[in-house]
Amino acid sequence: MDSKFLQDLIVPAKTKIAMIIMDGLGGLPLEPGGKTELETARTPNLDALAAQSALGLTVPVGPGITPGSGPGHLGIFGYDPIQYEIGRGALEALGVDFDLGPNDVAARGNFCSVDTAGLLTDRRAGRIPTEVNKELAILLRTIKMDGVEFFVETVKEHRFAFIMRGSGLGEALTETDPQKTGAPALPVRALKPDCEKAARLANQFIDQARKLLADKHPANMILLRGFAKYPAMPTYAELFGLSAAAIAVNGMYRGVAKLVGMKALKVDGDTVADEFTTLEKNWNDFDFFYLHVKKTDTAGEDGDFARKVRVIEEVDALMPRLTALKPDVVIVSGDHSSPALLKSHSWHPVPTMLYSKYVRADDIAEFGERACARGSLGVLPAKDVMPIALANAQRITKFGA
Amino acid sequence: MDSKFLQDLIVPAKTKIAMIIMDGLGGLPLEPGGKTELETARTPNLDALAAQSALGLTVPVGPGITPGSGPGHLGIFGYDPIQYEIGRGALEALGVDFDLGPNDVAARGNFCSVDTAGLLTDRRAGRIPTEVNKELAILLRTIKMDGVEFFVETVKEHRFAFIMRGSGLGEALTETDPQKTGAPALPVRALKPDCEKAARLANQFIDQARKLLADKHPANMILLRGFAKYPAMPTYAELFGLSAAAIAVNGMYRGVAKLVGMKALKVDGDTVADEFTTLEKNWNDFDFFYLHVKKTDTAGEDGDFARKVRVIEEVDALMPRLTALKPDVVIVSGDHSSPALLKSHSWHPVPTMLYSKYVRADDIAEFGERACARGSLGVLPAKDVMPIALANAQRITKFGA
Repeated sequence: MDSKFLQDLIVPAKTKIAMIIMDGLGGLPLEPGGKTELETARTPNLDALAAQSALGLTVPVGPGITPGSGPGHLGIFGYDPIQYEIGRGALEALGVDFDLGPNDVAARGNFCSVDTAGLLTDRRAGRIPTEVNKELAILLRTIKMDGVEFFVETVKEHRFAFIMRGSGLGEALTETDPQKTGAPALPVRALKPDCEKAARLANQFIDQARKLLADKHPANMILLRGFAKYPAMPTYAELFGLSAAAIAVNGMYRGVAKLVGMKALKVDGDTVADEFTTLEKNWNDFDFFYLHVKKTDTAGEDGDFARKVRVIEEVDALMPRLTALKPDVVIVSGDHSSPALLKSHSWHPVPTMLYSKYVRADDIAEFGERACARGSLGVLPAKDVMPIALANAQRITKFGA
Repeated sequence: MDSKFLQDLIVPAKTKIAMIIMDGLGGLPLEPGGKTELETARTPNLDALAAQSALGLTVPVGPGITPGSGPGHLGIFGYDPIQYEIGRGALEALGVDFDLGPNDVAARGNFCSVDTAGLLTDRRAGRIPTEVNKELAILLRTIKMDGVEFFVETVKEHRFAFIMRGSGLGEALTETDPQKTGAPALPVRALKPDCEKAARLANQFIDQARKLLADKHPANMILLRGFAKYPAMPTYAELFGLSAAAIAVNGMYRGVAKLVGMKALKVDGDTVADEFTTLEKNWNDFDFFYLHVKKTDTAGEDGDFARKVRVIEEVDALMPRLTALKPDVVIVSGDHSSPALLKSHSWHPVPTMLYSKYVRADDIAEFGERACARGSLGVLPAKDVMPIALANAQRITKFGA
């Protein structure tokens, strides 16, 4: 079902949809035969909502594919993450909450170490402290050239986002990282004729950076890779007729939400409770709310099963504040799985529930991986959840007579 | 998800995957409310493995489609059987273990009967004994022409495989079988300009065959159909980064495995136990093993429910020899269903289990059609099993950041 087909069937409504995304929600038992994080967590509110919901397991990208946060979010947002691939540079810029424009070309930057002959000795500049990175970024921002604006945004340690803003800049550019020490940084080359200008400007920037950083060893040079523009995507307004808001603390998720045209709301504080407060305050102003919980993923990636359980229980305890708002449709899911056992993102399908007054409830009063495996949504592509949610919100009209 | 997308995410690993294919595994109860062959079989080892596995039902080609052995295998091997269609001629050649080259054009041949006017009286030459077929094949092999090599390989009764080997031979050729008696055999016509040479050679071969067979009634003429080359397919090494071995007794399955670049191992003997011995002997030398059990299908096609049950029990008894090898991932499935009730291949989805240390086990300690219908893999295209197996073998890296 392509997006144009759906778009033509969208009708206006007053209904409200809330999507609660616990990052990396899906898990695994620590021992064969044991329970997952979500199954272990005491979740009376989620279980009660599950009893009134359709349950299923969502596949974010495709069978066996472990998604990064970008593709994982695009999937549950209703987009095909393979069709709309977010380049590494664009993701890095989004991650620092940089307001990437449609013509900007972004890259992922590394500070690195070179010897007197210009050969790389450390591709990560000994992972300099973030504070040093911030000082060097200020230095690099002094580089100015006609017809282009450069941005250098500190990410963490040796990493920064590099953005070129100007007209006629293409993104088909080679990276400068030779991927080994003992070799010089490579020049940026244009892979398409309309990228020559961008290649020339990037190389000039690197030349000037080399001079400015000459006495800043170990961070005496830079590497740029993953040049990419903002992918051109239809927005939630265009695709689903929704005015949508994003409630997320971390820049990366605010960025991905902005990519699809959601308004990233200001959150006072950085707890999940603060996010629920933001939800309550803005409830009357949007049709759709995406609320992102980061710490389930962080705990999973740290291999901390118990902490992931606690984060899930924290979200569960806040759920009555959402149900008190009387949402027409509630989706609770994740962007991917992050089992503590694997200490990383994984390919496992994600437990998902969809509540509405019009859903065909499964009579399974439990929110967990095995419960969802028995649910009537089955195992489904994550991108199929939004059309079902829209239908339950009475925002899709009949197809054909 | 296209194959190029997956290919780009494949990473090397030391893990091993074993795929046990019981041909025509899926079945039906003989009486409404009864058990299928697999449900009837006493399978303590498969049931124990199921308890540690994710279960599902695989659809080899598409909903409602009954696959032949070629498409059925391509599906569970991870290929779209509709995209990679194996032509009838190529399948016939593979079926007799003929080493079909990428430029060879193969056809399915029939001995047939014609009257003095050359009109067909029996399109199958009264199903002559296979021994007669073999003698006639020796005769046809005396036909020689410049710039081409002909092969005639007996299949069974009136059927043989016909192969032309030479440069510049195309496969877009019409068949000679008019599909009715009372009509003459049709000439081979080229459907594309680059197939003229092949058409001319095939017609010359048929002319000479007619003369050689003139006094061999009822097998006094031949019909050729299903001209086809070996389909060009990416191999397991190219697609999945796997060095793969096939353990199969019958030529047809060795052939399909060779199509995807598996090495067909020599099996001493022809029992399933002999196949497991081959598995053990070669365990250290490959990443992936496909082990094929033929007799489940033969029993199903013969309508012999009890015999199919016994073959499944025989495989079950051998399973400890596989698990003793400590495979990282085990797939147990079939290439299609062959219910004894139907005495033929069928469209029914195939019970499938996927075991690994990292699988989300379903806690269903039973391997059977209804058990698999409750499994967390859901009902899935057979071609999606391999990506999930590769993920569990930690051979797929993360997509996107």
